[in-house]
Amino acid sequence: MRRERVRELLDQVASGSLDVTRALAALSFEPAESLGFATIDHHRALRNGYPEVVYGAGKTPEQICAIASHIAEHGDGVLVTRLPAGAAERLAVALPSIEINDVARTAFLAGADRSPRGLGTVAVVTAGTSDLPVAEEAAVTLGALGDCVSRISDVGVAGIHRVLGKRDELLSASVVIVVAGMDGALPSVIGGLVRAPVIAVPTSVGYGASFGGLAALLTMLNSCAAGVTVVNIDNGFGAAVAASRITHRDA
Amino acid sequence: MRRERVRELLDQVASGSLDVTRALAALSFEPAESLGFATIDHHRALRNGYPEVVYGAGKTPEQICAIASHIAEHGDGVLVTRLPAGAAERLAVALPSIEINDVARTAFLAGADRSPRGLGTVAVVTAGTSDLPVAEEAAVTLGALGDCVSRISDVGVAGIHRVLGKRDELLSASVVIVVAGMDGALPSVIGGLVRAPVIAVPTSVGYGASFGGLAALLTMLNSCAAGVTVVNIDNGFGAAVAASRITHRDA
Amino acid sequence: MRRERVRELLDQVASGSLDVTRALAALSFEPAESLGFATIDHHRALRNGYPEVVYGAGKTPEQICAIASHIAEHGDGVLVTRLPAGAAERLAVALPSIEINDVARTAFLAGADRSPRGLGTVAVVTAGTSDLPVAEEAAVTLGALGDCVSRISDVGVAGIHRVLGKRDELLSASVVIVVAGMDGALPSVIGGLVRAPVIAVPTSVGYGASFGGLAALLTMLNSCAAGVTVVNIDNGFGAAVAASRITHRDA
Amino acid sequence: MRRERVRELLDQVASGSLDVTRALAALSFEPAESLGFATIDHHRALRNGYPEVVYGAGKTPEQICAIASHIAEHGDGVLVTRLPAGAAERLAVALPSIEINDVARTAFLAGADRSPRGLGTVAVVTAGTSDLPVAEEAAVTLGALGDCVSRISDVGVAGIHRVLGKRDELLSASVVIVVAGMDGALPSVIGGLVRAPVIAVPTSVGYGASFGGLAALLTMLNSCAAGVTVVNIDNGFGAAVAASRITHRDA
Amino acid sequence: MRRERVRELLDQVASGSLDVTRALAALSFEPAESLGFATIDHHRALRNGYPEVVYGAGKTPEQICAIASHIAEHGDGVLVTRLPAGAAERLAVALPSIEINDVARTAFLAGADRSPRGLGTVAVVTAGTSDLPVAEEAAVTLGALGDCVSRISDVGVAGIHRVLGKRDELLSASVVIVVAGMDGALPSVIGGLVRAPVIAVPTSVGYGASFGGLAALLTMLNSCAAGVTVVNIDNGFGAAVAASRITHRDA
Amino acid sequence: MRRERVRELLDQVASGSLDVTRALAALSFEPAESLGFATIDHHRALRNGYPEVVYGAGKTPEQICAIASHIAEHGDGVLVTRLPAGAAERLAVALPSIEINDVARTAFLAGADRSPRGLGTVAVVTAGTSDLPVAEEAAVTLGALGDCVSRISDVGVAGIHRVLGKRDELLSASVVIVVAGMDGALPSVIGGLVRAPVIAVPTSVGYGASFGGLAALLTMLNSCAAGVTVVNIDNGFGAAVAASRITHRDA
Amino acid sequence: MRRERVRELLDQVASGSLDVTRALAALSFEPAESLGFATIDHHRALRNGYPEVVYGAGKTPEQICAIASHIAEHGDGVLVTRLPAGAAERLAVALPSIEINDVARTAFLAGADRSPRGLGTVAVVTAGTSDLPVAEEAAVTLGALGDCVSRISDVGVAGIHRVLGKRDELLSASVVIVVAGMDGALPSVIGGLVRAPVIAVPTSVGYGASFGGLAALLTMLNSCAAGVTVVNIDNGFGAAVAASRITHRDA
Amino acid sequence: MRRERVRELLDQVASGSLDVTRALAALSFEPAESLGFATIDHHRALRNGYPEVVYGAGKTPEQICAIASHIAEHGDGVLVTRLPAGAAERLAVALPSIEINDVARTAFLAGADRSPRGLGTVAVVTAGTSDLPVAEEAAVTLGALGDCVSRISDVGVAGIHRVLGKRDELLSASVVIVVAGMDGALPSVIGGLVRAPVIAVPTSVGYGASFGGLAALLTMLNSCAAGVTVVNIDNGFGAAVAASRITHRDA
Repeated sequence: MRRERVRELLDQVASGSLDVTRALAALSFEPAESLGFATIDHHRALRNGYPEVVYGAGKTPEQICAIASHIAEHGDGVLVTRLPAGAAERLAVALPSIEINDVARTAFLAGADRSPRGLGTVAVVTAGTSDLPVAEEAAVTLGALGDCVSRISDVGVAGIHRVLGKRDELLSASVVIVVAGMDGALPSVIGGLVRAPVIAVPTSVGYGASFGGLAALLTMLNSCAAGVTVVNIDNGFGAAVAASRITHRDA
Repeated sequence: MRRERVRELLDQVASGSLDVTRALAALSFEPAESLGFATIDHHRALRNGYPEVVYGAGKTPEQICAIASHIAEHGDGVLVTRLPAGAAERLAVALPSIEINDVARTAFLAGADRSPRGLGTVAVVTAGTSDLPVAEEAAVTLGALGDCVSRISDVGVAGIHRVLGKRDELLSASVVIVVAGMDGALPSVIGGLVRAPVIAVPTSVGYGASFGGLAALLTMLNSCAAGVTVVNIDNGFGAAVAASRITHRDA
Repeated sequence: MRRERVRELLDQVASGSLDVTRALAALSFEPAESLGFATIDHHRALRNGYPEVVYGAGKTPEQICAIASHIAEHGDGVLVTRLPAGAAERLAVALPSIEINDVARTAFLAGADRSPRGLGTVAVVTAGTSDLPVAEEAAVTLGALGDCVSRISDVGVAGIHRVLGKRDELLSASVVIVVAGMDGALPSVIGGLVRAPVIAVPTSVGYGASFGGLAALLTMLNSCAAGVTVVNIDNGFGAAVAASRITHRDA
Repeated sequence: MRRERVRELLDQVASGSLDVTRALAALSFEPAESLGFATIDHHRALRNGYPEVVYGAGKTPEQICAIASHIAEHGDGVLVTRLPAGAAERLAVALPSIEINDVARTAFLAGADRSPRGLGTVAVVTAGTSDLPVAEEAAVTLGALGDCVSRISDVGVAGIHRVLGKRDELLSASVVIVVAGMDGALPSVIGGLVRAPVIAVPTSVGYGASFGGLAALLTMLNSCAAGVTVVNIDNGFGAAVAASRITHRDA
Repeated sequence: MRRERVRELLDQVASGSLDVTRALAALSFEPAESLGFATIDHHRALRNGYPEVVYGAGKTPEQICAIASHIAEHGDGVLVTRLPAGAAERLAVALPSIEINDVARTAFLAGADRSPRGLGTVAVVTAGTSDLPVAEEAAVTLGALGDCVSRISDVGVAGIHRVLGKRDELLSASVVIVVAGMDGALPSVIGGLVRAPVIAVPTSVGYGASFGGLAALLTMLNSCAAGVTVVNIDNGFGAAVAASRITHRDA
Repeated sequence: MRRERVRELLDQVASGSLDVTRALAALSFEPAESLGFATIDHHRALRNGYPEVVYGAGKTPEQICAIASHIAEHGDGVLVTRLPAGAAERLAVALPSIEINDVARTAFLAGADRSPRGLGTVAVVTAGTSDLPVAEEAAVTLGALGDCVSRISDVGVAGIHRVLGKRDELLSASVVIVVAGMDGALPSVIGGLVRAPVIAVPTSVGYGASFGGLAALLTMLNSCAAGVTVVNIDNGFGAAVAASRITHRDA
Repeated sequence: MRRERVRELLDQVASGSLDVTRALAALSFEPAESLGFATIDHHRALRNGYPEVVYGAGKTPEQICAIASHIAEHGDGVLVTRLPAGAAERLAVALPSIEINDVARTAFLAGADRSPRGLGTVAVVTAGTSDLPVAEEAAVTLGALGDCVSRISDVGVAGIHRVLGKRDELLSASVVIVVAGMDGALPSVIGGLVRAPVIAVPTSVGYGASFGGLAALLTMLNSCAAGVTVVNIDNGFGAAVAASRITHRDA
Repeated sequence: MRRERVRELLDQVASGSLDVTRALAALSFEPAESLGFATIDHHRALRNGYPEVVYGAGKTPEQICAIASHIAEHGDGVLVTRLPAGAAERLAVALPSIEINDVARTAFLAGADRSPRGLGTVAVVTAGTSDLPVAEEAAVTLGALGDCVSRISDVGVAGIHRVLGKRDELLSASVVIVVAGMDGALPSVIGGLVRAPVIAVPTSVGYGASFGGLAALLTMLNSCAAGVTVVNIDNGFGAAVAASRITHRDA
C-alpha cells in the first residue's frame, strides 16, 4: 500500500467520510494487486512487448501447442524453451510463422509489439561445440528480448590463441555470456580480458568427475577473475535474461 | 599478434627487408606483453584510478602493512579485504588517513586519482544482521571503485513486509546486490520486484544443513526469478566488482 | 487387530465359547495388535476407517490390482500412490468405483467406514505448476484421511503479490503444506505470514544445481521462518499424513 | 504493531486527537504491522506475550547483554539461545531474575505478559545423553512459549525396551519432539508408536560418517514411519516453535 | 617365499650345490604362484567345493551362458548374480538343472562337490518387501556356500512389534544379515536385541533424500548399536560371503 | 510378551481367575522391562563380566572420573574411550589400578568378574603408523572384552612385501581387523589373503581429497575382496565389538 | 597449420609467388597456427603425423562419418573415441580401411604420415575384466600416437599373486597406466612395485557406494604410493595422451 | 636391503664366513628387500642416494628431531615435509647443516651419497602467491631427488599475458608442475601450450565454494587439455615424486 493511499485513508477517517472499522479493514487487507509494480515470474520475461516464456520441459507437445496458440491469439509474443521431442513439428503446423531453433530447442513467435531494443551487443561465447545448445538458448532468448547477439564459438582455453584471436569482438560487447562445460575455465580468462560484465554459464558437458556440470559450476564460482557472476548449469535462458537486465537498464 | 603487425611482417618479407627465418621466428614467438590490453587480476580492480586490491587472508599484519605502504608511496590507492587480526591497528599507525571498516574487515586509502564514478546507485541488501560483514565488504569495495551505495538491511523474507517496505529504494537502484545466508531466499523475491540486474551473494551464516553457505548458494542458483546471477559464498568483494562492471559500462 | 476384537476374544475365552489354544493362535496370528498400541506402518495410514495404503512404485499393474482388489473385498478402503504406467487402466476395470487422479498418480477407493474427519482445513500450496503432482498426492491423501483441503497454486515468490493475495485463505487454514521445487523459497515467506503449522515439501522440479530437489530441501531446512518443518523430496503423501496427525490430534 | 494499536490510532484520528501527519508517521514507523498480519521473524516467537528471541551465536556477551536489557526495560520477555562463552555470567549480573540454562545454553526472562498456554504436553525425547543440549534448547523454548514439557531421555533404539517402557508417556503427548544424533533412528520407532505429530531433530552428535549430523538428517527424512517431519540439525529452537504452532493452533 | 625355502636355498649355497648368482635370482624373483595360499577374487567364493561366481551385470546373456556352461562341464558349481534380462531363459535351456531365482536375479548350479556346511543358521532379515531382491541374493548365495538360511521379512521399525515378535528366531541365529533401505534403522534395533554378529546391508530402496541408498548406508555406519558392520549398498552377495566367513571359521 | 505368558493369561481368563478387563489391560500394556533379553547399548559392551563402556568425547575429566569411580565402587569393570585431555591424570589418581593407554586414549579397569574369553586371536592390522591410535582403541577394547590380540603394524600396500611377510600371522587369526586411512586399500589385499572374517576400519588419516576418511571408507565399501565388512571412520571400538561378537559366538 | 606450411607460405611471399594479401588471408584463416606454438585441443592429439581426434559421444553416426571422411580425404589420420551405437557399421562402409575396436568403442584410420614412435613400452593394466573398455580406449589411443603397448589384465589386488606374477612386465615398462574401478586399490600396489611413472584411471565400474567411479577416484588421489597421478573417471584417452607426453618427451 | 647386500650375504655364506642361521636371520630381519624389487613407501623417496622422507604432520618436534638425527647418523639424507610449529628451530640446533624452508615447511639434509640427477628441468608454476607453499614443497622435494627446478610464479589465467610471457621457459621444461587453487584453470591453459607432461596440483587456497580445494581438483580432472594428470589437494610432494619418476626414467 502506497504512502499516498494510507494518507488518503487517514484523511477520510479524519474527515469522517470513512469509519474506523472500514479503515482498519482496508489497512489490514490491502491486496497484492494494488501494489502496482512489475513482477518477473520464473521463465517469463519483462512486460511491455516482451514475449511470454513457456518452459517446455515436462509438458506434452499438445500442451505446449495449446499454450502458445492461446498467447498468439492475443497478439502477444511467445518464447518456448526446452522443447520436448515432437513439439517443434506440431508448433510449426499450428503457428507457421513461429521460428524453430533445433540446436537451442526453442520456438519463438514475435508479438505485435516488439521488445524494446537493448543497448549494445551481447557476446555469447562457447568453449566447445558441445556447449552450443545452451549458448543458442541464450542467443534466441536475447533476440526475443530485443538484444543484438554476437556469437563466438569453440574458443576453449586449451588452445588459448583461439580466444585471444577474438579479443576485439569481446572488447566491443556490452555484456559477455561465457558458456563452458568440463573444466569451465574460459570465464576466468575472458573475465581478465574484458571490463564488461561477464556472466558464466556452466554446462553439463563432460563425464565422470564433471558430475553433471558441478565441476564447471564450482570453477566459475571460484573464478580468479574478479566480478564474474554465475547462473545455474545449462541455464542459457537465465543468462540471457540477466544480460538483458543490464542492457535494458534504462529502458 | 595483431593483423596489422602480421601484414607488416609479410610486407617486409615481400620486400626482402626481412628474411623468412626471422619472420618465422617472429610469428612463432610474439610475446604476451605486446598484446596491449587491460587485464583484471584476481582481487585487483580496474586500471585508471582504481585502487590496488590486497586480499588480506593468510597474510601477516606486517606483510599487509608493507604492501599497502609501498602502494601508497606511489600515490596509488589501495583496498585491503579480509583484514586479519591486528592488521587494522598497524595500518592505522602506518597510514593515518586509511579508512578502517571493522565490520567489513577492510582498509581503504584513496589514491591521488579517484576511481571514475559509476552510473546510478548500487543497492546492497541484507537478509539478516549476521550478513552485514559480507555486505559491508561489498559496500566498501563499491565506494573504492567509485560507486554510490544504498544500504538496505535486515529485510529477510520471513517478514515479507520488510522488503516490500523498501520497494521504492530497490526500484531506484542501477544494480541490486542481495546478501543472504541460511535459506538464501531473498534474491528470488527481489528478483521479482525489480528489473535491474540482481547479483546474489550467499553467506556462510547458518548452521547444520546450511553446510557453510552451500544451502544458500544452491537456492540462489535455482532462483525462480529469472536473470539472478550468483557469486561465491561470502564474496562481497566479487559482487561489488561485478556491479561496478555494470555501472562503469561506458567508462 | 483392534482392541474390540481382543476384548471379544477374551470374552469368548471367559465364556468358554473359545478354548485357550485357538485364542492363542488368533492372538499370535496377529502379533502386532496383541501389543495393544496403535501402529502406523510405512505408507499405511491410521486405524479405524483409514484406508490401507499401497506404495505403487516398483510394483507391476497386476500386483497392484491384486492387492487393491483383495483389500476392497474386505470392505476396507485403499489408497494407491505412485501408480506405475498401466495401473490406472487396470484398476479402473477391476474396481469401477475407484477414483483415479492422473496428476497425483493415485487411486483411491473409500472403505465401508470412512476416515474420521479432521479439524479445520489443510491448505496445499504450490510454488509452480510443475509442483502440482506432488501437491495432488498430498491432497488426495488428505481426502482419504478425512481432511478438508484448500488448494492454492502457482504462488511462487518471484511474483510475491501472488502469495500475498492469498493471505486470507492461508490464515484460515489449520495446517499449511507448501510444495516447492527449484529455490524452495516459498515456505520461508508463508512461515512468516501464518501462525499455523507449516509443512514444507521440496520437489525434484528443476535442473542442474537443483540436484534432484536437494537445493530446495536445504533451503527449507534452513528456513529463516522459525518452526517450519520438512519432509522428504516429492513426499506429498508424508506431508499429508503429518498434517493429518495434527488435525486428528483429538480424534 | 498490534491490531488494537492501529484501531486506537484510527480512533484518535477520527476523534481529532491525532492529526493525519502524525498518524501517518506512526504507521510508517512500523510498516510491518500496517500490513495487518502477524509476522514471525527468524528466531523470534509469536506476538502477544511471547518473548523476543535473540540468537546468541556470533554476538559478543556485551551485545547480548545490551539487547536483553533493552527488551527487559520495556517489560517484554526475552529468550537468548546459543549463549556464547561469558554471556551467562554477564546476563546474570545485569538481569538477576533471568533464568540461565547451562545445558541448553539459553537465558530466559519472562515478560510482564506471559505467553498464552499451549494445549496439552509436548514430549521432548532424546536418544542419548549427548543429545541433551539440543533437547534442552527445545524444552526451554517451549516453556518460554507457554507449553508444558515432558522430558524422556536416553531411550535410543539400541536398547529398544527403553523407549517401549515410555509408551504411556509418549501416547499422552500432544506433540512429540524426538532428538537424536548418530543413526537418527529413534523417530522412526516413535512415529510408529504414537498418532500425535512427531517432529524429528537431528543432532551433530557422532563422528566420522555422521558428517556433522547429515547421517541423522537423512535417516529422518527417509523415516519409514509416515508423517514424521524434520527440522535443521541441532535446531531445538525450531522444533519447539513448530510444536508451539500446533499446540497454539486455536490461540 | 617361505622361510623353509629360504633356509633350503641358503643350505644349498653353503654346501656349494647352488652358486650365488642363481641363489640371488631365486630370491629376487620368487613368483606369486609359489605363494601357495588361497585367494578370494572379487565376487568369487572360496575354494574346495565352492561354486564359481559370475557377476552378471554388464554381460550379455550369451556371455553368461557360455561361461556357466564352461564351468559346469568341469563338474564345478556356478553361481550367477545380477542376471541381466533374458539370461534366465537362456540358462534354463542350456543347463536344465540350474536353479533360477527371479527375485534374487540369480542362477545356481551345484557342483559335484558341495560346499562345506556352515555352522548354525544365518538369519536374513528385511525391513520391507522392496528389500527382498537384495535379501534373496544373500540367501541364495548363502545356500550356495553351504549355509542354512532363516528368512524374516517385512519387520521394519515403524511397526516395532513386528521385529520384537521375531526375537526368538533372531536369538537363535549364528549371524544376522539385516537388509534395509529408506531410513536403514533396523540394524540398530536388531544389534541391540542379539549378541551374534550383525551385518547390515543398505538398499537403494527409497527416493529423494535416500540418494540411492546413501541415507541407509550412513545410518548403518552410525548405528548406535555397537559392533554392527556394513557392506556396500545392495550388496546381498557380499553380506552372504561375510557371514560365510564367520560360519566357516573352522572349516 | 512371550507366548507362554499369553497362554498363562488366557488360562487365567478361561479359569475365571482373571477377568477380561484386567487381561485386556495386561495384553495392552506389557512393559518393556518384562521382555527379559540382553540389550547392547551404544558404546557399552555385553553383560556378564563385561565392563561398562564410557564414551569420553564431550565429557569433562570430572564427569568421567565420577562415572568411572561410581562403576568401580560396585566392583564392575569400566572402559573409557576417547579420553579428553586431562582425564587420564585425574583417573590415575582416583583409580590407581586403572590402565591408561595414551595412544589409544583409553582407560580400562577390570571388574571383579572378567569377561569371558573369546575364541582364537584377533589380528589388528594397520597400514601406517598414523593409524595406530584407532588400532589401539580396538586392541584395548578387545582386551577388555576377553579377546587375545595380535598386532601387525605399518604394512600398507605401497610396500606389498610388508603385508605378505605377515601372511602366517594373518592366516592364524580368527578375525582380522584392518585399520587404514588415505587410500584404504589394505583390506582388499588382506581380504584376498585370508578366509577369516575381515572387518575394515577407515581412519581420518590423510588430507585434501581424503575428506576426513571418506575416501578410505568408500574404498572399503567397494572392496574387490568379497565379504569384507566396514565400520564407521575411526571406530576402533566398534570393530572390536564386532570382532568380539564373532569370537564369543557360543559364549 | 604446421610450421612447415608457414615456412612454405613465407617462402612463397619472399619469392613473390604469393602476394601479401593472400598470404595474410591464409594465415588468418588459421589463426591458431599463426601464433607459432603447438596446441593440443581437447581430445585432439599432437601435431606432425598425429591423427585428429573426434570425441564421438553426443554426435550422430552421420556426423561422425562425415567428419572422419573429411579428414581422411586430406590424407590425415583420424581417431574416433566413444563411438555411439551404429557409428561403427557406417564408418566401416565409408572408410573400409578404418580399424574398429568394439571393446574400446574406437575407430582409427592411420594418416599418410605416421605418428612418431614413443620411447619404450606403455603397460596398460586392468584390475578386472569390466575395466577393459577403458583400458582398450587407452591402448588404441597409444597405438594411434605411436606408442608400443603391453596389456596386463585382471590383476586386481584381491588376488595379490596375480599382479606380483606380472612384476617383470611391469618393471620393463616406460610408463604404467593402471585402470581400476570399485575400490581402485591397484595403483597403490603397482606404484610401490615400479619406479616408472604411474598414471591411474578410475573407472565407473561398480555400484552403490562406488558413486559412478568417485570411490576409485578418491582412492587413487589418496594413494599411499608416492608419485601416482590420476586422470578423470573412465578417461582412457587422457591417460594415453599423458603417457605419450612422457614417451615423446624428446620427440 | 639392497641387492648388493644380499649378494654380499650370499657370498659370505658361500665362503663359509657366515653360517646359514645368521644369514637367514639377516634376511628375515629385512624381509622387504629379500623380495628383490624396489619399493617406494608412502612419503619416502627412491633407493640409492635418495633421502628418507618424514611426513611431519601429526608428529611432535621431538619425534621429528629424533627420527631425523637417527637417519643422519647413518650418513643418509632426510627430507621432512609439513614441519609442525617449533620443529624447524629444534632441527636447526640438532642438525646445523639442515636446510629449513619456511615457505615450504620442509627441512632437508643431503646424505653422503647424492640423489642421481634427473634429466632436464622441472618447471614449477603457480597461479597465485598463495599457492607458493605447495609449490615450494614440490621444489624442495625435487631438489632433494636430484632434479633441477625452474620456478614460474603468479601467472594465473585472469591475466593471461602473464603465462604467455613465460612460454619459452615452459617450452624448455621436461615436466611442468602446475599449482593452482580457486578455479584451478591454469593447467588447462598450460596443457595447451606445451607438449611435455603436465602434473596439476590443486591447492586448498580459496574460500566458500572452493570447498577446501575440491573446486580446483574437479577443474583439473576435467581439463579440456588432453593428457593433464592430477595429484591430491596440496600434494606438492607427490607431484615432485611423480615428476621425478619421469625425469629419472632411465636412471
